[in-house]
Formats: sequence, structure tokens, C-alpha cells
Amino acid sequence: MKSDSAIAQEATMLPIAMIAKQLGLADEEWEPYGRYKAKIHVDVLEKMKNHPDGKLILVTAMSPTPAGEGKSTVTIGLAQALNKLSQRAIAAIREPSLGPNFGLKGGAAGGGYSQVLPMSDINLHFTGDFHAITTAHNLLAALIDNHLYQGNELHIDPDRVTWRRVLDINDRSLRQVAIGLGGRGNGVTREAGFDITVASEIMALLCLVENATELKDALARMLIGYTYENVPVTVSDLGVQGALAALLKDAIHPNLVQTIENTPAIIHGGPFGNIAHGCNSLIATQMALKLGEYVVTEAGFGADLGAEKFFDIKCRRGQLEPSAAVIVATVRALKYHGGIPKKDLTIEDLAAITRGFANLAHHARIVSEYHVPFVIALNRFPTDTDAELAHVEKLCAEHGFRVALTEVFAKGGAGGMELARAIMETIDHSEMSFAPIYDVEQSLLNKIEIICKKVYGARTVQFTDVAKRQLADCDRHGWSNLPICMAKTPYSFSDNPSLIGDVQEFTITIRDIRPSLGAEFLVCLTGDIMTMPGLPKHPHALKVDLDESGQVTGLF
Amino acid sequence: MKSDSAIAQEATMLPIAMIAKQLGLADEEWEPYGRYKAKIHVDVLEKMKNHPDGKLILVTAMSPTPAGEGKSTVTIGLAQALNKLSQRAIAAIREPSLGPNFGLKGGAAGGGYSQVLPMSDINLHFTGDFHAITTAHNLLAALIDNHLYQGNELHIDPDRVTWRRVLDINDRSLRQVAIGLGGRGNGVTREAGFDITVASEIMALLCLVENATELKDALARMLIGYTYENVPVTVSDLGVQGALAALLKDAIHPNLVQTIENTPAIIHGGPFGNIAHGCNSLIATQMALKLGEYVVTEAGFGADLGAEKFFDIKCRRGQLEPSAAVIVATVRALKYHGGIPKKDLTIEDLAAITRGFANLAHHARIVSEYHVPFVIALNRFPTDTDAELAHVEKLCAEHGFRVALTEVFAKGGAGGMELARAIMETIDHSEMSFAPIYDVEQSLLNKIEIICKKVYGARTVQFTDVAKRQLADCDRHGWSNLPICMAKTPYSFSDNPSLIGDVQEFTITIRDIRPSLGAEFLVCLTGDIMTMPGLPKHPHALKVDLDESGQVTGLF
Repeated sequence: MKSDSAIAQEATMLPIAMIAKQLGLADEEWEPYGRYKAKIHVDVLEKMKNHPDGKLILVTAMSPTPAGEGKSTVTIGLAQALNKLSQRAIAAIREPSLGPNFGLKGGAAGGGYSQVLPMSDINLHFTGDFHAITTAHNLLAALIDNHLYQGNELHIDPDRVTWRRVLDINDRSLRQVAIGLGGRGNGVTREAGFDITVASEIMALLCLVENATELKDALARMLIGYTYENVPVTVSDLGVQGALAALLKDAIHPNLVQTIENTPAIIHGGPFGNIAHGCNSLIATQMALKLGEYVVTEAGFGADLGAEKFFDIKCRRGQLEPSAAVIVATVRALKYHGGIPKKDLTIEDLAAITRGFANLAHHARIVSEYHVPFVIALNRFPTDTDAELAHVEKLCAEHGFRVALTEVFAKGGAGGMELARAIMETIDHSEMSFAPIYDVEQSLLNKIEIICKKVYGARTVQFTDVAKRQLADCDRHGWSNLPICMAKTPYSFSDNPSLIGDVQEFTITIRDIRPSLGAEFLVCLTGDIMTMPGLPKHPHALKVDLDESGQVTGLF
Repeated sequence: MKSDSAIAQEATMLPIAMIAKQLGLADEEWEPYGRYKAKIHVDVLEKMKNHPDGKLILVTAMSPTPAGEGKSTVTIGLAQALNKLSQRAIAAIREPSLGPNFGLKGGAAGGGYSQVLPMSDINLHFTGDFHAITTAHNLLAALIDNHLYQGNELHIDPDRVTWRRVLDINDRSLRQVAIGLGGRGNGVTREAGFDITVASEIMALLCLVENATELKDALARMLIGYTYENVPVTVSDLGVQGALAALLKDAIHPNLVQTIENTPAIIHGGPFGNIAHGCNSLIATQMALKLGEYVVTEAGFGADLGAEKFFDIKCRRGQLEPSAAVIVATVRALKYHGGIPKKDLTIEDLAAITRGFANLAHHARIVSEYHVPFVIALNRFPTDTDAELAHVEKLCAEHGFRVALTEVFAKGGAGGMELARAIMETIDHSEMSFAPIYDVEQSLLNKIEIICKKVYGARTVQFTDVAKRQLADCDRHGWSNLPICMAKTPYSFSDNPSLIGDVQEFTITIRDIRPSLGAEFLVCLTGDIMTMPGLPKHPHALKVDLDESGQVTGLF
């Protein structure tokens, strides 16, 4: 099969003006960024508030292998397939992070015949949203250090500044740094560090607000550290939320592009899936619901992490009512969770699939806990055998799961017709009514236990001494009625990535609790979470080039 | 008089598509960024290479006061005035840096009735050029540190890495930092630092190349440090020039906007005026020369710094033939250089003007050294008295200088008609032929002495021991035939900012020489040059806001 980039080059993009027109947008409601990218004004949401919403479909997955199971590809392919069935469908997905493109592998936003275009632009600077977030984040950091330097009226303890800096670059050397060296004129000396931009709280909150006013309020709420007297200090104490919001004036508008089959795609925001909620912006999803009959969106990792946060954080916040979910499964992930080592995943093994199916069934139970009907998308890979695919279908039937084989990578929308029909029928016949799994008014301990036990299947939850103290602090500061954002490995239901399959009888350890007061959730960390990746020995940057005609090569 | 922002809000912008069309650009030759900004494809230069060039007018100035003398405003006003005289004139100017907008004062690109629009956009992220440079610069830094961490095959001495990091933020705390703390997994521990993005060598070289191929070659040449054996290491040794160029694929295209009177303005690049050459990109100037009958451009600071570098670095590189120069003078700058303290500059003082005139006359001599005819633009400020203005005109007449009173801030193009007519006549009657002041084949010592003596008027040039060693190193490494880029205070012809007027009999001390091998010049530093500004006690960020309708307020 052709490479993603060869496929992209052969595609015929429509002018973005035509895509905008097909969506019913007036000229003054969107702005072009080049000929094939646009921003839709956030005001359109307010204008269309009495317009009925389309149906929201969440694409989630079983626990992935480290190579990924093609969730974005299924998301894009399903939107294309729905269009082929004459439904006005829109894909709503995350913006990719620039930094990792130059690390282990190149960029991507879908793949094969289910990708969004123009791929190079989307993977590089796109419309500048991430750069705006980086700038706002680092301006705040500079303003905090300037406050320390200029007399520190707020009495901020330099050792308890919690606000770090960010870059959209994989740069391990910046994880932990000392700043303000070289004498008094260079500021207050202290330890600091950089995360990758997708880990910025500004990224998370931009993806959870609905307009410029909410954006500014959320920025004002952000915690930046503590005083010597242990009083929390927020952006509003510095009074610079307006300046930060000004830097985000364009980033708040969602981006419109198209798939390789000219299906509209709204791509906006991309918060981390561990220390944040891992899905595209609420504004983008709401906009798509106003403009489309069906909206296909995705959440990071498996249902334990991505769907849980999508339902409990994003849907709760935006009062979204998901109509159905797609759970992506692959033969290789089923074999992986059946205990087959990574190097042997291409060898036919029906018994391993049977064993690994317990993992998929657990994800299906999670989705059902939220009263959302689902279809399993069996996402075909070239190494899958017919016997394996038939075996998965048989197991699904035994469990009463509706399953659809998808070949969207190789065939585009045509490869997703079965899934599209299955989803439409499932939505039509469902009488379920979505509800989050916990109530925000419950105690922090209760909320954490509900997620760990009802979603992950843990037997017990334990807290480190640090986390216990932080729980008490959260209560004391009045932060207890926020939703929980769990940071956990995506490879296991437990906090140990090597415990694959449908692990039972395990204990989850909460080791750290970080308040994201702007985004309005409490991050509970389990295990080690890396917020600034490094580059490998032979970084992908070595393969990327710009040819004489100004075209990027080797990026994906 | 109304504020800049009130004036901007009352202006009627034309759709950028109309401005592009007026310039004769076909639809496929430019791309919109919103409705009022565009990028012109760099390929247009190649397509139009046989098209005759317009006339190039450089706007420079006498030694400024710290408040600035309105050079950008005169540049924009003169382009507007030429248009009023039915000449197709284009302003070619620098992109403003984002960081300083949140520091001492807000943004600007001209002012009053001579400004470019949309002002907020131009002062914030504009079309993302600076963010692309920041990203490419920091990706290179991450790749260097990753090389050190992954075995250091090139044998780079961690203590002799010369490549720093950049942010478009005023952040003094990052001037000097220690990176790679926290153990082996976080990279090699070493001292490092951040500059502001406009100080990036990538900014400088982007402004001196003519196409994507030259861009990649220039990136490949950049010096990043030295091996343990004292051998220079360049980007080509790492093999990542392609990745850096890919990040600059859009940044290489110049930006098209309009002035408040709908005169086209090409705004592209903005290198520092001290450690770099301080003018907009060569591509922008060349593009403007192909599209316009007159191109009005500017260079940083006074003629000693800005015009010298414009002539000796940029014009030499691009084989540009400037037709004339405008030297901006103000009553307040004349009084300042006549010895009047800043607080008394609004008091009428003809004697001080007479004394300060020597400074202006010196700048006029500098321009004449390059065989470029000039007109003095006497840029009117509200506090100037009629007697003072008449006195300046009398002194100009005595010196044989053509002078034109400009009121472009208060009156727009209408306030620059006298200057426009004077410049057109000067060009028509001139028989001069531009030539740089030194030959690149001369020795480094000779070239430095020519600039210091013939341009600045120094009696002697001395070198620190470090600089002497660096001179010898440059010879040894074969870098001697590069042009010189002097980093010197703009407030004096000497390297001491307090020696105002037309200082005589002074000595210049060269204390450091830094090779910019990608940009192809050797930076000679005199005095202390700050490459990362700090924020003041009450930063302008406190005044900037985003209102409910999504409009930025308080920025300028």
C-alpha cells in the first residue's frame, strides 16, 4: 500500500471556503488560514444556541499496544462513511503536538485513506494555537519570576512556585533546571522546569471553556504557587488574566479542515491524556454538534482513561449527551492482552485472542456504566488472518456485543460502511440515557474510589502520605467538589503497565494530587508520569526535509 | 489627538484580497491569513526576476533619544504620501517582537495616522513567523543536548556549546540557567541560557536568504559549538538543517498587510539591531521592489548602526541599489544631542539645536560615504515651536541639506507630501552610484577600522585580549572574508551611551567577536549588549485585556 504522504499528495482538497459553505457558515463566521485551513468564530456557538444538536459518537478503545490501534483513523473513517451514507457528519479531533514529530516517529492525524489534510500543516504550526498557548504560559512564568524579583509583594515562596514553563519540543534537558543564575540582575535563583506544551494547564482549560469570558475566568483561577504562609496564589492575584487571554484571542476559535474524502473535520486543542482530560476542545465538539447531524470524536487511550474523562469531565462540563460509543479493538491488541510478546503479534493465535478478549469486555463494561450504547470496531491490520477476524466476531456475538469490521485505513469511508450502519442503528434503537459515574458533590475519597473500583476494577485504593496530606489540603482550600482527572498508565487497568489483560485484585496507589483550578479538576497521579519527553538516539528530525519547491518531506 | 488604537478602529481596511489584486498578484501567488493578512509566495521573486525593480528608499535617523524619533511612522507616512502622488509605493518594514509588548510599553508599528493594520494581530502572533523561528531554534538546542546525552559522537564540549535557546518573552530569569539537573535521565548537566527570539541567528539568516534552498544552506552553516579538540561544529554535522527548514516553510514567505490609508505594506522578519543587522527580510524588500514603483524601508537606530548594516550587509548580499535615504531628525533629538536633559526637551532652545545639529550632520556624512543622496525629514512633534522648526530648516540650508517637514503622525500621507516630492526629485536628479564602504576581501582588522573610523569617527580602535584571540581564530577557521556586524549603543557614535552629540577623539573597544556563520557576518561587540530583556515593576501586561467580544484592549 502507498505511504500516507503519497496518498495525501494524490488527494484533491476542496477550497476551505467550499467546506465552510457546505456547513452553512456565512463568510463573516470564519477566517481563512491559507486556502485549506480556517478558523470558525466561537460566536457561532452563541448564535446557534437554539439550533438542535447532532448526535455525538465517542470513539474509544480497548487497552492499546504501545503502537496504537488506529483510533484517530477509525474516527476519521467513520465520519467519512457516514457522509457516504448521506449523513452530514463531522469529525472532531485533537490537534497533534509538534514536538514529538521530530522524536520517535513523524506526525500523523489519522492514516492511509482516513486522514485529515493538509497533513504537514496540521502537524507543524497549523493555525498557531499551540504557539499561543506556549506564549501565554511562558509569559505567566516570566511575570511570576518578575514579581519575585521586583519586591515580591504577594509574599510568594520561590520554592513553592508550582507554575512551570513549557515548550512544544521534546527536550529532556529542560525537565529540571536552575534559573536566575549569574547574579542579582538576572532574577531570583530557584529550581524550575519545562513541560511539553500539551501538558500546560492553559491547554486543558482552553479545551473546557465555551467563550472568551469563561476563558478569562479560568485563566484567573489558575494556581501558580503558595505564599510563605501557605496561602494559595492564583493568576487573579497577579492581575494578568487579561494579558494571557489576549494572547489566546485566536486560539479560542476552532479550526476547520477536511479529510481526504472532503468530510469536514474540526480540529482544536490537544491536552495530555494523563495529567489532563485528553480530548479536543468543548467548543469544537459543541460547534460540530450545531453544524452536523453526526459528530464523531475521540478521547485518548482506552475507555478506562479516555472515555472516563470524556464522560466525567468534558460531557459533565458541557452538558453533552453522547449518543453512542465505538470501542476500537484490533487482533494484535487482543493477542497482546492475551499474553503474546510484542515481537510475536503477527503470528496467528486464536487462543490468545480468547484470553485477551477479557480486556475488551472490561472496556465494554466501562462504557455501559455510563449508559452509553456501543459498537465494537474491529480495526483490520494487514497481518490479521481471516480466522482471527472470524474468531473475534464470534466472541463478540457470544458476549452480545455488536461488532463491525473496519478497513478505513486501506479503503477510507468505504471501509467503514458496516460500522456507520451499525452505529446509526444502535443510536436509533437505544433507550439509554447518559450519566456520569460519580457526583461532584461526593467526597474526594469517594470519587477516587468510584473511578478506581467501578472503572478500573481495583480491589483497594491506597494513598501515599503526601497524597493524604494533599487530600486534606484540598478539603481545607475548598477544592473538594471538583471532578477527578486520573493520571495512570494506558497499558493496564492498574497503575503497573506490565499487568495486561483484565487484571484482577490489584491495588491502585495515589501518590500525588495536583489542583488544576483553571481547568477545574484535581489531577491524581499514579505511577511515574512523564510531562516532558526526550528525543531518541536517531530522532525523526534527521528524516525531515524541505525540498526546493518548499514542500516538507519525510515528516509522516 | 486620538489614541493610536482609536484611530485604528475608525479606519476602513480593504480585504487583503483587494490589496493583493492591486499589486498584480494572481490568486495562487498568495495565501490569506484571516481577511486582512496574507503571505506572498516567495516563488513570485523567481517568476518576476526579469521584471524591473522599483526605487529603494531607506529611512534612517540621527542618533535617537531613548523615546525614539518616529522612524517607522515616517516610513509608513512616506509610502502613504507617495501613493497620494499616484506612485505605486510599498512600505517594507520589520515585524514587531511580541515579548516587549508586555514589558515597558505596548505594541506599535508606526503610529497616529501612519500605522499598519491590523495592529493587534501584527503585534501578537501575526502569521506565526516568530513562533516558527523560536521552535526551529529550540528544536536545534534540544537536538544538540540530545546528541551530548546519546553518546556525543561528534565529541562536542558541553562547556563550549554556543547555541542558546530563545523565547519571544521578556524573561530575565532565563538569561543564565543550569540545565539537565535531576540525574542522568534528564540529560547532561551544563550552563545554558535564553535570548529573546529576535536575537536568534535563525531570525538574522531568514532575513538574508532569497529562497528555500539558500535558507537550508544557511541553517546548515550555523555554528553550534566546538569539539574538545577545538574544531567548530555546525548544524550540517548534526544533519538537521532539513528539519529546521521544514519548520520555516511558511515563515519564509513575506507578509502583506495595509496601512491605515490602504497603502500596501510588506512586513517580514525583525532581527535585532545590535547583534544582527536590524532590517526586514531581503525577500520582503526584493518582493516589494518587483511589485512597487517606490519601496520605503527602514533600518534600526541611527545611520551609524542601521544604515551602515543595511548598506554593508543587506544591500551587498542582495545586490540592492538604494536610490535615496531619508534621515529622520526631530527637534527633541537635536536638543538632546545639544546637551539638554531628557526632562527639559520640551523647552524651546535654539542654541541647543545648533549644538545638536552636529550629530545630524555626522549622520548625513555617513550616508554620503555610501554615495546615496538624502533628504532630512524633520518629524514634527506637538511640543515643537515654530521658531525651532524654522531654525532647523535654516541650519539645513546652511549645510546644503534638503529638508522636509513631516507631519505624518498627525496627518497621515497628507503630512508627508513635501517629503515625498523632495525624495522623488532627489532621486530624479541624483547621479550617485551606491557602493559599500569596505570590501569583504579586506582583513578583519581593516574592515573593523573602516567602520569605527569612517562611519563612527573614532580616533582609535582597541581590542580586548579575548577579542584579539578571536580575531586570530576567525582567520584560522577561514571566516575572515565575512562582513562585520557591529553591536554598539545607538545613543552615541562611541561605545559609551553618555557621549552624545558628535563626539570626537574617542576610542572604540572591541571586546568580543561572535561568528554568525549562517547569517554570514561576524558580530563585534562593544560595551554590554542585552539579548534577553526583563520586565519592569509594573509591566504593560497589567493593562492588556480581552473584552467579551474577543477584542484585545490596552495593547497599544
